[in-house]
This record gives sequence, structure tokens and C-alpha cells, in this order.
Amino acid sequence: MARAHWGCCPWLVLLCACAWGHPKPADLGGQDVRNCSTNPPYLPVTVVNTTVSLTALRQQMQTQNLSAYIIPDTDAHMNEYIGQHDERRAWITGFTGSAGTAVVTMKKAAVWTDSRYWTQAERQMDCNWELHKEVGTTPIVTWLLTEIPAGGCVGFDPFLLSIDTWESYNLALQGSNRQLVSITTNLVDLVWGSERPPVPNQPIYALQEAFTGSTWQEKVSGVRSQMQKHQKAPTAVLLSALEETAWLFNLRASDIPYNPFFYSYTLLTDSSIRLFANKSRFSSETLSYLNSSCTGPMCVQIEDYSQVRDSIQAYALGDVRIWIGTSYTMYGIYEVIPKEKLVTDTYSPVMMTKAVKNSKEQALLKASHVRDAVAVIRYLVWLEKNVPKGTVDEFSGAELVDKFRGEEQFSSGPSFETISASGLGCPSHPTKELNRKLSSDEMYLLDSGGQYWDGTTDITRTVHWGTPSAFQKEAYTRVLIGNIDLSRLIFPAATSGRMVEAFARRALWDAGLNYGHGTGHGIGNFLCVHEWPVGFQSNNIAMAKGMFTSIEPGYYKDGEFGIRLEDVALVVEAKTKYPGSYLTFEVVSFVPYDRNLIDVSLLSPEHLQYLNHYYQTIREKVGPELQRRQLLEEFKWLQQHTEPLAARAPDTASWASVLVVSTLAILSWSV
Amino acid sequence: MARAHWGCCPWLVLLCACAWGHPKPADLGGQDVRNCSTNPPYLPVTVVNTTVSLTALRQQMQTQNLSAYIIPDTDAHMNEYIGQHDERRAWITGFTGSAGTAVVTMKKAAVWTDSRYWTQAERQMDCNWELHKEVGTTPIVTWLLTEIPAGGCVGFDPFLLSIDTWESYNLALQGSNRQLVSITTNLVDLVWGSERPPVPNQPIYALQEAFTGSTWQEKVSGVRSQMQKHQKAPTAVLLSALEETAWLFNLRASDIPYNPFFYSYTLLTDSSIRLFANKSRFSSETLSYLNSSCTGPMCVQIEDYSQVRDSIQAYALGDVRIWIGTSYTMYGIYEVIPKEKLVTDTYSPVMMTKAVKNSKEQALLKASHVRDAVAVIRYLVWLEKNVPKGTVDEFSGAELVDKFRGEEQFSSGPSFETISASGLGCPSHPTKELNRKLSSDEMYLLDSGGQYWDGTTDITRTVHWGTPSAFQKEAYTRVLIGNIDLSRLIFPAATSGRMVEAFARRALWDAGLNYGHGTGHGIGNFLCVHEWPVGFQSNNIAMAKGMFTSIEPGYYKDGEFGIRLEDVALVVEAKTKYPGSYLTFEVVSFVPYDRNLIDVSLLSPEHLQYLNHYYQTIREKVGPELQRRQLLEEFKWLQQHTEPLAARAPDTASWASVLVVSTLAILSWSV
Repeated sequence: MARAHWGCCPWLVLLCACAWGHPKPADLGGQDVRNCSTNPPYLPVTVVNTTVSLTALRQQMQTQNLSAYIIPDTDAHMNEYIGQHDERRAWITGFTGSAGTAVVTMKKAAVWTDSRYWTQAERQMDCNWELHKEVGTTPIVTWLLTEIPAGGCVGFDPFLLSIDTWESYNLALQGSNRQLVSITTNLVDLVWGSERPPVPNQPIYALQEAFTGSTWQEKVSGVRSQMQKHQKAPTAVLLSALEETAWLFNLRASDIPYNPFFYSYTLLTDSSIRLFANKSRFSSETLSYLNSSCTGPMCVQIEDYSQVRDSIQAYALGDVRIWIGTSYTMYGIYEVIPKEKLVTDTYSPVMMTKAVKNSKEQALLKASHVRDAVAVIRYLVWLEKNVPKGTVDEFSGAELVDKFRGEEQFSSGPSFETISASGLGCPSHPTKELNRKLSSDEMYLLDSGGQYWDGTTDITRTVHWGTPSAFQKEAYTRVLIGNIDLSRLIFPAATSGRMVEAFARRALWDAGLNYGHGTGHGIGNFLCVHEWPVGFQSNNIAMAKGMFTSIEPGYYKDGEFGIRLEDVALVVEAKTKYPGSYLTFEVVSFVPYDRNLIDVSLLSPEHLQYLNHYYQTIREKVGPELQRRQLLEEFKWLQQHTEPLAARAPDTASWASVLVVSTLAILSWSV
Repeated sequence: MARAHWGCCPWLVLLCACAWGHPKPADLGGQDVRNCSTNPPYLPVTVVNTTVSLTALRQQMQTQNLSAYIIPDTDAHMNEYIGQHDERRAWITGFTGSAGTAVVTMKKAAVWTDSRYWTQAERQMDCNWELHKEVGTTPIVTWLLTEIPAGGCVGFDPFLLSIDTWESYNLALQGSNRQLVSITTNLVDLVWGSERPPVPNQPIYALQEAFTGSTWQEKVSGVRSQMQKHQKAPTAVLLSALEETAWLFNLRASDIPYNPFFYSYTLLTDSSIRLFANKSRFSSETLSYLNSSCTGPMCVQIEDYSQVRDSIQAYALGDVRIWIGTSYTMYGIYEVIPKEKLVTDTYSPVMMTKAVKNSKEQALLKASHVRDAVAVIRYLVWLEKNVPKGTVDEFSGAELVDKFRGEEQFSSGPSFETISASGLGCPSHPTKELNRKLSSDEMYLLDSGGQYWDGTTDITRTVHWGTPSAFQKEAYTRVLIGNIDLSRLIFPAATSGRMVEAFARRALWDAGLNYGHGTGHGIGNFLCVHEWPVGFQSNNIAMAKGMFTSIEPGYYKDGEFGIRLEDVALVVEAKTKYPGSYLTFEVVSFVPYDRNLIDVSLLSPEHLQYLNHYYQTIREKVGPELQRRQLLEEFKWLQQHTEPLAARAPDTASWASVLVVSTLAILSWSV
């Protein structure tokens, strides 16, 4: 899945630059957005009246003597998907887009968001709210300086600002005679009151040993060993990201959508383990699994989630040094630890360790991808039969592929909201009301993935059931070449993804084409579908053997069609002619590309050789699984779609045999 | 030229990892380095006795109440090559390597340097000095904390620490109860006294209009226009890098080796221009050229170089905002400007503007490269005749190519110290005493360039006059493929060099080979041979039409041979099949590669097509120049060495014609 925001950093916003492309549910004569310049203002029915809640918020602000209050779009753990009870910005503004910051002063209220959401915001916000078509802290602070008086205080919830975001607000306000004020009680929550959805409280369970790479005790020992080797000798590691605690203890739950996590922190010291979570959510078996009744170095003491700040503050009084990953630690924790007692890295040792899968984790992730391929192939076969009937739309399609995945062994739901997009160029999430019919005249892009107890998957395929245009075939083939060129690249160990991601773009660049999103991201074992810090972005860490990353070039023709070809690949050692420490990728997604969209004449002999080898692997991995399950129609489809491809001149079919010979000859010299 | 240090940042040290490879002048039985563990210590004759100067320095430190004094290896302008009077670290330690920091306490003295210089330091330093085989401020501060008492002061010359370096010392010392103390009088200079070489005092001259891209008045207006458009409305730009002032006023001199600069600063305000330099060095014509007798906005007021700090401090008292490029501003200037009056960017607007050459500057740079090719070709032809005689060595060769360049029109000496290296793998600078004989049995690498009034050049060619091994040919050809793959790459406008430099490495990586230096750097018009901020490093700016960069992959087999193929290329617009803003490179270095080292069977049809097109261009550009100059032997050599190359199977020559046909066929499909 190509993600617009990877991580929390606004400079990572890599947008698919295209307009709100879906057909509107009804023709409103252009009046589906608000118009605040008329008297009275025009407000469509989709708008939320926020007057009452804003008044109540301003009363709270007055009590705290604030001139302004910042309402971010994140939660206390920098989760990619946040729970309903954390959707404070959406509740106070009416605007439900996933990205956007609100700021309220005593007189004004404003939202800053990126171009993906401008129309949506104009449809959902009433005229209490200004819309600012910018992102980042700089425009917010510029606005604040004109709107609030000198001496004014700007309040914020310190659990909703990362260290970096806080620093950028702080830096921008320096010398301005306006002050940032950290208030641990969230003011929106006070106003929201009993209407606020409850915090999830489902059981927290331990994974079966068959689905874990190591026991939690082994993982704890591993982290402690890193603490001992660390130059600055930290006495504790503090884990703030939910995936860190879930991974460390092999525990899972379902507090937030798509990610099997639970609200938690961990303070792992050299002599104790403190897990901050709601104790009532653990069964007695799980408590026993965690050795929670003792207090030794291998006993997990469970403390209440709400106590984390006080507990860290108390721990920090001692002769200690607390190791944190600054990327996932919020200011609310950071501010209670004296600077000289902090040991900071961008990512915690758990994030760094988790990034490299051991052999058991690799095997688990691969196995989940084989079953995932079965679900996707079932769906593609079904589409091939049903799309021509005109009965399939983007939404029902998404539901069906989710259903097929749900029928696979160890399934635990989708790993993100399925993108099922026909035509138009800008793949987005269909809804029951807002979707488009699938057709043999249009390209169809499916970007979807599953959570399984053994692994998390993410794959994108683009298909066309009719007669694609020459340009569609060319664009598709260039995207495919990009995927192949990066997948088969051999590169030195410890090379950063950003150094090599252009190999996925070159075939597009050659023709003046490109794509506006990142080229890939890490993925977990029943954890995040976008698992940092692995990937091809500028702040990803260097590639190492045992990491998994997606490889997902694309091309989007605004208003017409979108192409993305995404596979997950394992980083493996490469065998080179001369000895050295080199790596390459082993693709573990096993669904063939669309033959109908491949222009073989654009492929080099090396591309064909790679592709045919990959198809052979798909046959070997997925074929037996389909046969075992008696999915004979799907098996036949797989055989047809993985037939070896042969070199072919663009127009003269009779050249084929000659060309294969020359091709093979040239291939043999260049190896 | 592949440069070990590009810019000032220690994390940019990209070393050619190989040992001190040159033959020693005489066999000293391993005793050419000091041994401080014997009693008395063993000191080779190359060692400098520093006892007296160290005692004197410690007296100065005592006067200033310092526990330690830092002696960096740079000058006040971050010059790549520094003047003799600035070689304070070399003078006080005896160690003359170009990189290394010294620190003196009341009891100890130590030098930190990288692996290139470890042996040299052991040969040159007496036992007053410890050698630390590390770089960066962290190990220095760690050492300081053990060597000086709490409450101690660490002195430094603020004109020898960049802002970044000062910040890293300051950060590392924070909370340690040791204090950094800025002392504007350099203590080493006080000790050096009358022995210190004089500061250069040659005339500063204006370039003829024929050799400038714009008048200084146009350049000044351009910078002022950027000031006006800047969001933070700076009232002045302060220029600290010598190349900035030289470029802005089209002035040159020869204060430092290889770079035609003079010691200077410029404070360009919205209503005045202040040039800090030694006024006696300007002729009356140059003073008149600069309108130095008036005080209006287009009059250059010349103030004494030594007054810069006081003048900036006085200017900063007003309601002003001073725009600086932090990369080239030293702490000595930075510390006198209040933070709220600073407008900081990594590079000044002059650095950014200078990076993009206008059409006249492009034409000038290209013309200098044609004449430069004549000099290099004359040398290669001469070598081909004389190397077999056994009379040429690395040093005499370097002298000869410098001489040939000196005979070219508009020549103003070499642009860096010529690297002339036979065999051994690690190209370094030969000396009269320390060099190797050129031989038909070894590879020879020549990395050299010239300063001409119209442009600066830099080219590397590697040759073999005998029978190269299959591995030498393979490595050479893979380096060549890397050069071609990057040179012919089409990429979107504003792509950063770091995103694409791996294309120069892929052919090497494929076989398990690589090189340990950067892939290229900007170059100027009679300015720096390593002109920042253009290039392929992580802190270079994005590529834009009109920039020039070197492209210089290599391969080095330790102790055996070294290969580098370096060209200078102009960034130009690319024509793509579909419209878009795309760029590519146009190579402007015009010397053919060594046919004797090219394994044609490794080249793809696209590589051959590119190479033959490049050879055709060389013929067209350089051929007429050779004929005009009656260099007929060189003309004949050029024709021979630019004969089109044809595809060839590795062993079966009779396949050739068949293969050419298939090659062309495949070529035609993939276009």
C-alpha cells in the first residue's frame, strides 16, 4: 500500500496529486460545499454544527487562561490508525479526514490540511472554521502570531505532540512573547464528556508459540544485552509505540483498526519489567505467561496505563539513564525526564531489532503470503467472470476480497482499508455510497492486505479485462520494469533504501513519467502493515539481511487510470562473482501480473528471464496450495497466467523465434 | 577528482580505503616511524622537534587561563587548500597531512586524524604528541574530559571553527563543567611569531568581461532581488567563502593554492556594498571598476579585512537582519550577530546562484574543456611513446601534463595537485622523492585539471599500454558502464544527486565490486574545482538545468591497480516521449577512454550507442582544434581512439555480424 503519511513527519507527505475523483452521490448543482461569504452562509447537509462545542471549549480555555489551543490529529502513540475516542480533531471540527491540525483561539477556529482533504473539509466544516490549505507548524505559528496577543499562552496536550513537533512549535514561537503551555488534561475530552466513545477494553492475549519468532524472555534479554553494550550505559528502555510492547511480549489485542495492538507503555530496566496497561484485560493465563506475580528481573509488573507519566517521573529521580526512540516518544513523557538522564536514538532498540526478522519469523511471513495469494487469486478469478456482467462495484469488490482473506487460515482481518479503484487515476477507499462500477473498459487497481497470526501482507495488482490502450500497456510495463529493476538489484550490505529507490523509477523517467509516492515500507509479523524504520524513504535505516519491505512503483494518469504493482520482498544475501557482502531482494508476494497489460517488446532479455523465474516460483508455491484446497478453476487460471513470456517484436509476430535466439545469445554474454 | 573531504563535514569523509601504497625512498628496516615506547624513544629523521614551540604555546595558554587549546586544520574561510601562513596545525605538530585536529593541554598534546595519515603522522611527530586514530569532535571531547580538571577552560580561535563544529563541541561539553572560550588572537600565531609565512599580498584583479557571465552590478542586483523576495526580509547578505566574493565582483587573485581567490568578506546590504580586503592590493583601475570612491548602493566601499568582525558587530546594532549561509560562516562572525537578527540558510544566495551557470558561463566552461582535452591528449600520446622506454615516472608525468596545460590559452595553472598513479590501487600525489615508474605492465591513473580564465576543468583517465588482465578489463568496463549509465540517465527536474548516484555503481555492484568515494562534485568558472553545493552527496542541492558536475565512478584493487573515469557534465533538459520537466547530462570532457581496457562484450547495445555518439562528439569538438594547431600526430591518435566500437561476443569473433544485427534489432524495440 502506498501510504501518504509514513510515520508522523509532515515532510513525508507524498501525495498522489489528483482531485477528489469519485462520482458524487447526487447532483447538488455544485452546492455540496459550504459558502461562508454569502449572508446567511450556505451550508450543505454534510456540515456539522460546532457552535456549542466550540463555546464549551473556549470556556475550558478561559479557565486555563489560554489564548489558543492546539488540537492535533494523532493519538498518544503516533498510531497510523487511531481509535474513535482519539478522533478529537474530527469531533470538534466536523472534518473527518485523517490528516489535519485544528487551532482554536477565543475568536477564531482554523484547520490546516493538505490538498487531499480540501473539498472534504469544505463539505464537513461549518463557518465557525477557517480552512488553511497548508501543512506544517510554520503556517500555524504565523497565523497564531497575528491572532493572539503578546503575552498569550498556547495550550496543548503533551501526549498529542511528538518531541519533534513540540520542538518545531517551540522554536517558531521563540522570542515572540507567546508561550507554549503543556496541559495533561485534554480540553476537548472535557467538552466531549459522556459522548466520547469508550476506550477499548477487549482481552489482551498472548500469541501461540507457533506464531512467534522468540519468547518474550529471549527478547527482553536481547534488549538488556543492547543496553549493556551501549556506550552511554542506559539503565532502562522506555517503549511508547504500541507495536514495540506488542512485539516484545508477543501480546496482541484489537484496540485500533487494522493493527492488533493495545494501549500500553513498557519501561524495561536492567532489573525489572513494567508494562503499563489495563490489568483487568489480562486473563489469569496471560498474567501467568507474563510472570506477573513476582518482582524479579524476568517478572512483568503490570501498572495502570494512566500511571505512566508519574511512574517515569519517579523512576527518573534515581541515578538512571532512560533510553528512548525519539520518533515515537511524545512530549508528555519526554518533558518529565531530565535531559541529562535521557539516552536518545531516533528509533528504540526494539524498533531496530524488530526490523530484522529471524529465520522463524521469515518463514512465518512467507507462509502468510502464500495463503494471501490464494485469497487474491480467488478474487481475480471471480472478477474475470463477474465484471463483464456489470454487477461489481469498487465497494462490493473490496468487501469480497476482505471476505476471501477472512476465509484463509489464521486470518485476523484486513491489514488496512482496502483500496479498490476503477479508472480515474487516484486510488482511494470506496464507500457504500461513493463508489464506481467495475468495467471491462477501465483499469482496476486493488491494493489490499491481511493480518494473519503468522504475518501481515500487502499487495497491489492492477488489471484490465478489455482492450487496454497502447499508452496504458506502456505505462503498466514501465511500472513493471521498475518493480523488476529494483527487485533484482544487487547492492552492498547496509545501503540505504533512498540510495536505490530510483531504480524503480528509471523506466518511467525514460519516457517522462513518474509517481508521487514512496517506493516501499517495512511490514511486520502480525504487526504494522507499514512497519518503520525499514523502507526506501530518506529517514529509513539501512537495508540488512532479514528485513522485509514492499516494492511498489506506480503511475497515475489523473482522471483516467491508476497503476501500482506492489510486492513484499525479503532482503537476502546476493551471490556475486567476486566475494563481498552484497544483498538483493527475494519477492514473497505470489500473484502474477496482468498479461493483458504487459508490452513484452519493452522488456529486456534480463527482465523476461527474471519474470519467468518469478512465475515459476509462483507456480511452485501457490499451485500445490490451490490443488490441496480443490480450487481447480483458480489452479487453471494460475497456470495460464504464469505461462513463460517470450520476447516479441512490437508488430511482427514472425520475428519471434529469431528474436528469442538473439535474445538468449545476448543474455548469455552479459551474464 | 575524487575528493576525500568534500566541504567541511567530518561525516563526508569518503576514503579510498588502502594503505600508504608508495614505495619507500629507502629501506629503513621498518624504522621510518617513531617508537615512543623505547627509552630513549626512537625518532626517525623525518620527525620535527616541537618541544620549544609547545612550551611557548603553554605559556600563552597560561596567560589566558586555559586548560586546553584546540588547533583545527582549516582557515577562516573553510578553504579546501589553505595558505602556508594558515598551516598552524602542521607547524605546531610537525604533521603535515591535510586533515587532522590538534589539542594541547598543560601536560599533553594530541592529534586526531583519519587512516590516510596514520603512518605519515608517526613519521613526522615527535613523542610530545599522542596520535588518536579517530575523527570528529566526540573522541576529542571524551579525551578532554579525562585530561582537564572540572572548571577548566578550552580555548579556540573562533575564526577556525565553523558554526556546526562549534555547536558539536559545545553540545558535547554541556553539563560537563568545562567551558569553551573564544579567543580571537590565535595563540599558535603568537608563538609562531616572525617565522610565520607572510599573508599573500599579490594584486587583486578584475576578470576581462569576455570571461564573466554577468557584470558585478548585475550580480549585486540579483542578490538584492532575492533579499527582497525573502520571507524574512533580510537587510544584508554576509559572504564568508572566498569564492563568493570572487564570483560576485568578478575578481581574482592567487592567495591560496589552486583556487584563484583572495582573503575577503562581503557585506552586501540593501543600500551599500562593503568589501573587506586589503585595499593596497587593488590597482586604481580596479578601484574605479568597483566604483569605490562613492558610497551609494552601487558603490563598493573597501574596508580592511581585519575589520570584518567589528564592522559586522556594529552593523548588527541596527534594525537589521543578516542573511548567512551557515556552511561557510565561522563562529567568529556568527557569535557577534544576535540570534534574532540572523537569517540562516545552509548556503548563501550567492552559493545558490553561482551553482547554476547562465548560457555565457556554460559556453565558457565548455570552451575551456576543449582546450583542456588537447592538453590531456598531448600527454596521452606522449606517454604511449615514452612509457615503453622506461623513462617516465609518476612525478615527471604529473609535471609534464601540468606543463601541457600551461601551454593552453588562458591557462592559470592546475586546479588541484595532479594525481598521477601507476599500479598499487590507491591513487595519491607523487613527489620528486616518492614516486613509481610508469610501465606497460601496470595501469596508470591520471586525475588532473586546469584553471583557465574561462573555466575550471577536472578529468580522470585510466590507461594500460600492455596486456591488461581479464579482471582489469572487466573492472574498467564496469566503471565505464557506471559512468555511462549515470551520464545518460533521464530524471525529473529538482532530483537530488544522492537519489541517482547508485546508477554509477550498479554495474560494479552486480559483480560484487564498488568504490569508496563520492560520485561527483560541482565545478566553477575559474573558481573551485570542487564547487559546492552541486554534486551527488547527501548534502548537495537538487539538480537544475545549467549546473555542472563531475561524474566519476572508480574501482580500486588494493596494492594492484586503481581505475577512475571522470568527466564533467552539464545538466540539460531531456526530451522525453511524454511531456514533463526532465533533465539529463551532457558530458563536456572530451578525451576518449582506453580501448585496450574495454571489454565490449559487457556493453549493452545502448551503451555502445551512447559511447559511439560520445566519440563522434569528441571528434567534432577536439579534432578541428588539433588540426588548427597542427597537432597531426595527436589528431591521428584521436581518430584511432574514437573509431566506433562494435558489439562482439567474448570469444567467437565470427559471431560478430550476426550479433550486430540482433543487437540493432533489440535496440530498436527498446527505444
